[in-house]
Amino acid sequence: MYQHFLSIQELSKAEITQILAAAQEHLEQTKQLATFTGKWVVNAFFEPSTRTRCSFEIAAKRLGAEVLNLDIINSSAQKGEEILDTFKNLAAMGCDVFVIRHTENHMAEHIAKHLNAAVINAGNGQHEHPTQAILDMLTIRQHKTNFAELSVAIVGDIIHSRVARSDIFALQTLGVEDIRIIAPRMLLPSNNSELGVQVFDNLSLGLKNVDVIIALRIQKERMRAATLADIDPFYQPYQITTDVLSIAKPDVLIMHPGPLNRETEITSEVADGPHSAILQQAKNGVAARMAVLEFVQGYIPVELQDAN
Amino acid sequence: MYQHFLSIQELSKAEITQILAAAQEHLEQTKQLATFTGKWVVNAFFEPSTRTRCSFEIAAKRLGAEVLNLDIINSSAQKGEEILDTFKNLAAMGCDVFVIRHTENHMAEHIAKHLNAAVINAGNGQHEHPTQAILDMLTIRQHKTNFAELSVAIVGDIIHSRVARSDIFALQTLGVEDIRIIAPRMLLPSNNSELGVQVFDNLSLGLKNVDVIIALRIQKERMRAATLADIDPFYQPYQITTDVLSIAKPDVLIMHPGPLNRETEITSEVADGPHSAILQQAKNGVAARMAVLEFVQGYIPVELQDAN
Amino acid sequence: MYQHFLSIQELSKAEITQILAAAQEHLEQTKQLATFTGKWVVNAFFEPSTRTRCSFEIAAKRLGAEVLNLDIINSSAQKGEEILDTFKNLAAMGCDVFVIRHTENHMAEHIAKHLNAAVINAGNGQHEHPTQAILDMLTIRQHKTNFAELSVAIVGDIIHSRVARSDIFALQTLGVEDIRIIAPRMLLPSNNSELGVQVFDNLSLGLKNVDVIIALRIQKERMRAATLADIDPFYQPYQITTDVLSIAKPDVLIMHPGPLNRETEITSEVADGPHSAILQQAKNGVAARMAVLEFVQGYIPVELQDAN
Repeated sequence: MYQHFLSIQELSKAEITQILAAAQEHLEQTKQLATFTGKWVVNAFFEPSTRTRCSFEIAAKRLGAEVLNLDIINSSAQKGEEILDTFKNLAAMGCDVFVIRHTENHMAEHIAKHLNAAVINAGNGQHEHPTQAILDMLTIRQHKTNFAELSVAIVGDIIHSRVARSDIFALQTLGVEDIRIIAPRMLLPSNNSELGVQVFDNLSLGLKNVDVIIALRIQKERMRAATLADIDPFYQPYQITTDVLSIAKPDVLIMHPGPLNRETEITSEVADGPHSAILQQAKNGVAARMAVLEFVQGYIPVELQDAN
Repeated sequence: MYQHFLSIQELSKAEITQILAAAQEHLEQTKQLATFTGKWVVNAFFEPSTRTRCSFEIAAKRLGAEVLNLDIINSSAQKGEEILDTFKNLAAMGCDVFVIRHTENHMAEHIAKHLNAAVINAGNGQHEHPTQAILDMLTIRQHKTNFAELSVAIVGDIIHSRVARSDIFALQTLGVEDIRIIAPRMLLPSNNSELGVQVFDNLSLGLKNVDVIIALRIQKERMRAATLADIDPFYQPYQITTDVLSIAKPDVLIMHPGPLNRETEITSEVADGPHSAILQQAKNGVAARMAVLEFVQGYIPVELQDAN
Repeated sequence: MYQHFLSIQELSKAEITQILAAAQEHLEQTKQLATFTGKWVVNAFFEPSTRTRCSFEIAAKRLGAEVLNLDIINSSAQKGEEILDTFKNLAAMGCDVFVIRHTENHMAEHIAKHLNAAVINAGNGQHEHPTQAILDMLTIRQHKTNFAELSVAIVGDIIHSRVARSDIFALQTLGVEDIRIIAPRMLLPSNNSELGVQVFDNLSLGLKNVDVIIALRIQKERMRAATLADIDPFYQPYQITTDVLSIAKPDVLIMHPGPLNRETEITSEVADGPHSAILQQAKNGVAARMAVLEFVQGYIPVELQDAN
């Protein structure tokens, strides 16, 4: 049996906590490691990605692994069977970990079920982006002392956002009770009542006294052409500006998974301002992915008897 | 003078045997080597390839080499002169081995003739795919004791297959007398009488008592659109199924160079069944290519006075 | 403050001389170095390039660095803000040096101004290609003893050539007084009087007694379609042939930045002949880029009090 990393929803509090602790250690000591010497990590991104792909490549090589970057974006029309056969071949060649981003929600899970190697989900459809949740929790933990007492607002294009889903699951598992999603009605998922969060369509009401604001990238490329020209004015009541920050707590933390649409979902003044942890998130991403790589290869001892 | 690896046809029995022995050693000890430290291997694939390209990359790095992956599929319209100039530049920069896949039969040979570096043919047009032949012979040798007594059937799209040609040459050099090619007439090469093999257009007759079946990928992309919809029914009498296996020897070995068209040239039941060595081929491919890299760099002593 | 390498024009004679000396040392000892162990170099080429990209990759790895190759040619429509945000993320992840080639003249400079990392210009629009100038000066220095006494002719498509501009600036800084540009009028820049060089539209007059000829690649892809078919005959009076070499000094050195249009701007007889240093340039390119990487990371002590 291989240890995979497919979704935040299936992780216990103990598992998340131990991954976060391992990631924090990697931030504090930065020397080249040899844990993964001789191991091969495959970067298999069926959607374009510069940042996440590079973040995994840097993480893997800092652990001493070799990295294969597959050039497969143009072959995304491949059927699941063909992808699985390719990966089975690569596993037979000695590849140990497959980092997979795919537009289909269940591709990573399907591959994990049939492959003799570990699978990490690097974003699947509109389902989950669990390593993003780890790096986001790491970022919050660096600034805030007690998850149980936090108020966290996730603002924007919730319906298209696998980041929102993974962050909500992670926050809930870590004990955050006051989670709010804030968006115009057409960007809210229809199942939002199942998420166990408060729903707001008014930014000022939603941001009241929050400790953390996670602004989401508005997925312009998934909107219909008819509405495209109108996105900015339509979206303006949900833009994170210096003005609306005053509604939140004075030490509010601003996060965004990137890439930014500057002056659409967030102003540059806020994104580059003193409350922003956006570049810290990028830095944390490498450490978080190092810890997740260690997790799937069994280097992080997990107490299965945790109380979650 | 540089040692190249362009075709199986030009290799002696002693050379093939020594390459196979070196490959087998790499399977038995898997620790990272330093033989190629400071050497650069260039992966120059003018046709798309995930498996073979990755196989060479893993092989080269296991030997300690650095690998340059050229992104040149889209520049396949380049003339031979331009390609040669690019490679001469890379050789001047210190690159030692060029692994070349190209649609034109004679490109690798042309480059080898004019380049101050070693050239490995990773598949040229419909001519040869010599490293595939090495890994296929390695796979057979692991399961069968005596090449001279074997019956080997190669089934399917012979006319488009450089694998079939290289396998036939290798089997002949290693002493196999009973080699059979089995295919519908339109998938047989016109020169099949020159190949020195038995030709069958009936699968049941051809598979009788064979020790090894090498099923080929049907190159759908090279068929005319008119016949494309009809490939599966047309091809069905040549499909390798559990039923037809009973015609062969009880311990028949099933091989396929990949990628599989499942349920076209082979059923999943056979491809994933107990007779299949398909994933073993992928594993052997890395070891075979390590040995070929060593061969072109002079690390495998070749007895020129062999009796072939 | 980060040390960048954006243009030859902003370098002093002492800086160029010290970079050349460091490059020459790298040619003379070729063992793997560890200076850049743990450092990450990003190859960000927004224009297609095999040679320069590979040259930087080899240079960086010879110094012990890790290299990230960004696959961004297809995203060249990205706005400067988006590119800068991506690079800020990569810098936050720990990337140290960004090697940038972009069609826009001021992109590299813009990024350098705002990024917490070193930037090397690997060719920007029609503005500068400063590492090419370093390798060209290195090549000249290996064959000629005294820059002050040299006559250097740059021939061909001057108007589109960032190589010409960087070479002119480097030659001037190193003390060459007799610099000539030779081209048909339509390939001369309108500001040629500002360049401080002699201008010729006649090849025979321009080449008289020169020590060095730098032939430029004619940028066919930037010509209008109407004139494309006519380029070769139109350009023939400026072609570097064995015949015209006799006009230059007997030991004239022939250089070309590549890729060659053989039989257009230069004959194969000359390009591959005894005067040609073209492959030496490719070899020198790796050493030059190693020195430039060391320069931006502070490993080359620069005497700011030089007399330039």
